[in-house]
Amino acid sequence: MIEKVVIIGVGLIGGSLAKSLKERRYANTIIGFGRQADKLQKALDLGVIDAWTLNLAQATQNANVVIIATPLGVFDTLFSQLAPLVSRQTLIIDVGSAKQSSIKIARQYLGDKIGQFIPTHPITGKEKSGIEFADANLFNNKHIILTPITENKHQDIDIITKFWQATGGVVDTMDAKTHDEILAMSSHLPHILAFSLMDYLSHQDRVYDYAAGGFRDFSRIASSDSTMWRDICLSNKDEIVNSIQAYEKHLKELKQLIKDEKGQKLYELFKSAKTKRDNWIEECNKK
Amino acid sequence: MIEKVVIIGVGLIGGSLAKSLKERRYANTIIGFGRQADKLQKALDLGVIDAWTLNLAQATQNANVVIIATPLGVFDTLFSQLAPLVSRQTLIIDVGSAKQSSIKIARQYLGDKIGQFIPTHPITGKEKSGIEFADANLFNNKHIILTPITENKHQDIDIITKFWQATGGVVDTMDAKTHDEILAMSSHLPHILAFSLMDYLSHQDRVYDYAAGGFRDFSRIASSDSTMWRDICLSNKDEIVNSIQAYEKHLKELKQLIKDEKGQKLYELFKSAKTKRDNWIEECNKK
Repeated sequence: MIEKVVIIGVGLIGGSLAKSLKERRYANTIIGFGRQADKLQKALDLGVIDAWTLNLAQATQNANVVIIATPLGVFDTLFSQLAPLVSRQTLIIDVGSAKQSSIKIARQYLGDKIGQFIPTHPITGKEKSGIEFADANLFNNKHIILTPITENKHQDIDIITKFWQATGGVVDTMDAKTHDEILAMSSHLPHILAFSLMDYLSHQDRVYDYAAGGFRDFSRIASSDSTMWRDICLSNKDEIVNSIQAYEKHLKELKQLIKDEKGQKLYELFKSAKTKRDNWIEECNKK
Repeated sequence: MIEKVVIIGVGLIGGSLAKSLKERRYANTIIGFGRQADKLQKALDLGVIDAWTLNLAQATQNANVVIIATPLGVFDTLFSQLAPLVSRQTLIIDVGSAKQSSIKIARQYLGDKIGQFIPTHPITGKEKSGIEFADANLFNNKHIILTPITENKHQDIDIITKFWQATGGVVDTMDAKTHDEILAMSSHLPHILAFSLMDYLSHQDRVYDYAAGGFRDFSRIASSDSTMWRDICLSNKDEIVNSIQAYEKHLKELKQLIKDEKGQKLYELFKSAKTKRDNWIEECNKK
């Protein structure tokens, strides 16, 4: 049980986290902080948070855990404001999809409080954003990646591990670069592919009229929040560019197989892709 | 009502068509033809067809409509066998995803019976194949594209239009090249992207462990039937290669925006993709 939790950015992730902690009675008081009073009031009306404020000093006073659940693009501003306000007892976590950049920004502003920042990333989400889609079970059985830094104390990592476990998440630990490489491939690249498919097709006539179920699923992630994805692209630039480049090679090879009418090789590639995907789904469904 | 329908290849599409016609009492007798007795017997046991045979002459005797619902790769063999067997009263349709190649093959074998062949393509499917996934409502409110050839008689096109309407489908007519271009973009390209994503990621460690819901949906179509997709790639080669090439340009441009950290342009591209996708889904849901 944690006494006071502050959530900065009460959207889909922040709101789901608040709901989850409340439902599991793991936080006594949950305070929402943000820039828009109406959104915070909505979260309060929905019973997601216990109180809200537009005053960061007030929000963070005596806080045990501060969670940054905003798009990555406002991390600079936030960390610069947080740095003088947080007491020595407060732990700070973020939930961003790019960890090297979070750490870099935190290091830039937090000074000798840097050890209080524990970078985390819950591997979950929806293509919908906003408090109205918040879900207490969003983290259930989902991987939560911690990418601790050398300055973190063992007992603080332990507190944050238990904190995430309380939401139903499965906590894994790895270094930030490995995280960024893996996520670039497993999450960022598929989003980029879906966005650029929509970008391509939007210039074509009549195509949408004849798109079927496969297209519906494939393109779902292109409905994701634009600000969040702009920020992810900028924050995990190098790893994303690397993964696009590697993907381009595979796509080019497949194109060449089609051009050269290599039926057997095409069959083998599709079969192997199908097997991999079927096995993955089977593993997922076991969980 | 049609007296005798023959379905060549009683898999997902053939089986769904049989079920749909039976449920709507649009066919008096449905005969299944294929190469594997056990699969045909299964379709009979499931009540999908009324009888089956491994003898094509027997199957097609006095048939009103013969439906070719096999992978495109066996069209050569099938049309060469069908040509001498079908009577002047029999109409032949296929359900292949590439229409120029179907027409080319039909023209090669059918001789002066070519006018009896009406190319069709129902825009529907599942990533599962096989009779056990057959669904009487698979065509409900789905686009069915007819790409008639100059030799078709107006009254025959009318029969086939009503036939597809009886399954719940919405019939559209266009020329085969337009069909192939549109489908290359709306269906074949997304499959190619999903297959090559799985191909790329299968060479990477640990990535699958950290793939979330977005990846699940995006990759679903990579579980599609390998034979069918090999044949589609070979049958619609030119249009698919064109669409991959056009897509590569868009992906490259997006990569460059990330490299150059063009935040505003990234935001606009993602916003436009999201808007397009959201509008498309809204249109779909209205139907």
